[in-house]
Amino acid sequence: MKISGYLIDLEQAVQTIKKKGYETIALQIPEGLKSSASKIIESVKKEIKCEIIVIADPCFGACDIANYELKNIGVEFVIQIGHTPIPNLGNDLIPTAFVNALSSKDVMQVVEKSLAYLDGTIVGVVTTAQHLHTLKAVENILKKHNFVPVISGGDKRIAAKGQILGCNFSTGTNIADKVDSFLFVGSGNFHPVGLLLSVKKPVIAADPYSGTVKKQEISDLKDTILRQRYGAIANSKNAKKFGILIGIKRGQQRIKLAYNIKDMLESLDKKSFFIAMDNFAPVSLQSFRDVDCFVSTSCPRIAIDDYLQYKKPIITPIELDIVLGKRKWEDYQFDQITSD
Amino acid sequence: MKISGYLIDLEQAVQTIKKKGYETIALQIPEGLKSSASKIIESVKKEIKCEIIVIADPCFGACDIANYELKNIGVEFVIQIGHTPIPNLGNDLIPTAFVNALSSKDVMQVVEKSLAYLDGTIVGVVTTAQHLHTLKAVENILKKHNFVPVISGGDKRIAAKGQILGCNFSTGTNIADKVDSFLFVGSGNFHPVGLLLSVKKPVIAADPYSGTVKKQEISDLKDTILRQRYGAIANSKNAKKFGILIGIKRGQQRIKLAYNIKDMLESLDKKSFFIAMDNFAPVSLQSFRDVDCFVSTSCPRIAIDDYLQYKKPIITPIELDIVLGKRKWEDYQFDQITSD
Repeated sequence: MKISGYLIDLEQAVQTIKKKGYETIALQIPEGLKSSASKIIESVKKEIKCEIIVIADPCFGACDIANYELKNIGVEFVIQIGHTPIPNLGNDLIPTAFVNALSSKDVMQVVEKSLAYLDGTIVGVVTTAQHLHTLKAVENILKKHNFVPVISGGDKRIAAKGQILGCNFSTGTNIADKVDSFLFVGSGNFHPVGLLLSVKKPVIAADPYSGTVKKQEISDLKDTILRQRYGAIANSKNAKKFGILIGIKRGQQRIKLAYNIKDMLESLDKKSFFIAMDNFAPVSLQSFRDVDCFVSTSCPRIAIDDYLQYKKPIITPIELDIVLGKRKWEDYQFDQITSD
Repeated sequence: MKISGYLIDLEQAVQTIKKKGYETIALQIPEGLKSSASKIIESVKKEIKCEIIVIADPCFGACDIANYELKNIGVEFVIQIGHTPIPNLGNDLIPTAFVNALSSKDVMQVVEKSLAYLDGTIVGVVTTAQHLHTLKAVENILKKHNFVPVISGGDKRIAAKGQILGCNFSTGTNIADKVDSFLFVGSGNFHPVGLLLSVKKPVIAADPYSGTVKKQEISDLKDTILRQRYGAIANSKNAKKFGILIGIKRGQQRIKLAYNIKDMLESLDKKSFFIAMDNFAPVSLQSFRDVDCFVSTSCPRIAIDDYLQYKKPIITPIELDIVLGKRKWEDYQFDQITSD
């Protein structure tokens, strides 16, 4: 079905529901498609008789699998719209179909426009889930203009070639050594800035929605973020007590890393304790008044995106290494959740 | 242990941990005790070697059992502090000990002060979890002054005699017919106002923290809330599409009620769909732009307390009956989650 500029193919999910005889389905939808919830429900119900319960809690990615408690209200199957699955994630709770929402936005024009900004001839190409189906065409444009496009597979958190997540740029880092620059097809700044911080090669962002190409802006934003991160690290130097944040969402769990951090802090006579959280909200951490610094092992975006909303410094595990003198600022790396 | 004016007896929970050999424990604590998280951790660790993970997501009651996903990060046992259990709730996911936090605040003085405000001689006495241990003394004061105190058991959601929850006033309604007035011992306005709306007898609130006795204020607040509710009902009269809200938290689930509402709306040719939510936040409902009215089967406080934060009317199932002409405004009842 076509909705708000997206193609959402529910056929396979509907077939599964039919085949398994599921009667109660939950629907996880990203914020931008919530206003189309009724249409999606109607579309499914036209094909099959079932009850559908829309989940209103925000769902930013396939890392956020449905709450097991839904089983107690009768949910047998979940359709999560707008995300590709994270292949290495266990999905042993409620069976879930991940249905991508493919943007119908034309990317050709903005990609043509981006060619003038590319450095060198070998170009790594990456994108987000909703533009994955355009990669072949992007590749062809580049070739036509004598560039050498490179599209790489990622690690086990990545469903498709050339796809990046806000927490995983492995399809970029895998080829960073052999390309001259990267072309990111998609909107928003977080993905291209995260990519730039991870691959350390020029990143050109072609936004099919606004039709704009950003290069300097991405580079400037990277500098701004690095300044903020430098500040957060500096503000954590005298921290006596650390709160080690653990994401409860399945795809944001890095429990081994959390334990390693605790051991490291203990070996340095620093106090710490674990704080787990499902929905990260600054207000939920405010009451931990004796904590001087939060170290987040959860979604990397929490420390980076929402930094200014927290009253205490919130840093990534890599940044903690710098705080503790185990890594130099020059070796700064963007935090990623990888499958290694 | 004594913390921030509360007595928290962790001994039984510690014994369970020892006996079962649990190694990883999660701690759910109410907002007001989060700043004492470190002290609670130290107190448990002094008695037994284990890892403790504090849950930062808000926990307003025993209705909010720990997320099953915690199992995947190794949690074997949960200690929920500050609430008594809800006896009829299934607790089949992660074994949980509910440890009440008993306020050390003296209630005698404010109860003495409240005597002048009581109507009649037969007085129903109710309180919240943290003052349960004072009920015997309150009873004695009343008797000494020739009142006849009545303390009743509640339905299967209520752990102790005389206890009320924000969503259940059965220890009050059970005896409303035979008492002249109610004495509520505790702080805040929600409980006494909810009680007043449920029992329809005078309610005198004795607040041990502020030392104040409120009667007119509670009655005025009831009037304010009733005016708001009347407005919400009026604003829902022309609603064409309803969002039926289902609480995902175990103790806030009323799925049968949700289905009944859906059937009723369908029989009246009104459109509706189910929306489930773990953490109720106005912003998460804003995007459902085609919904004209939300009917909440979840925690009654969501519709009543947070009403002004929602842009669309949000009403209780009883209020929907009034909207649909199945109940008169004169028969308005406060929404409760009961065990019936």
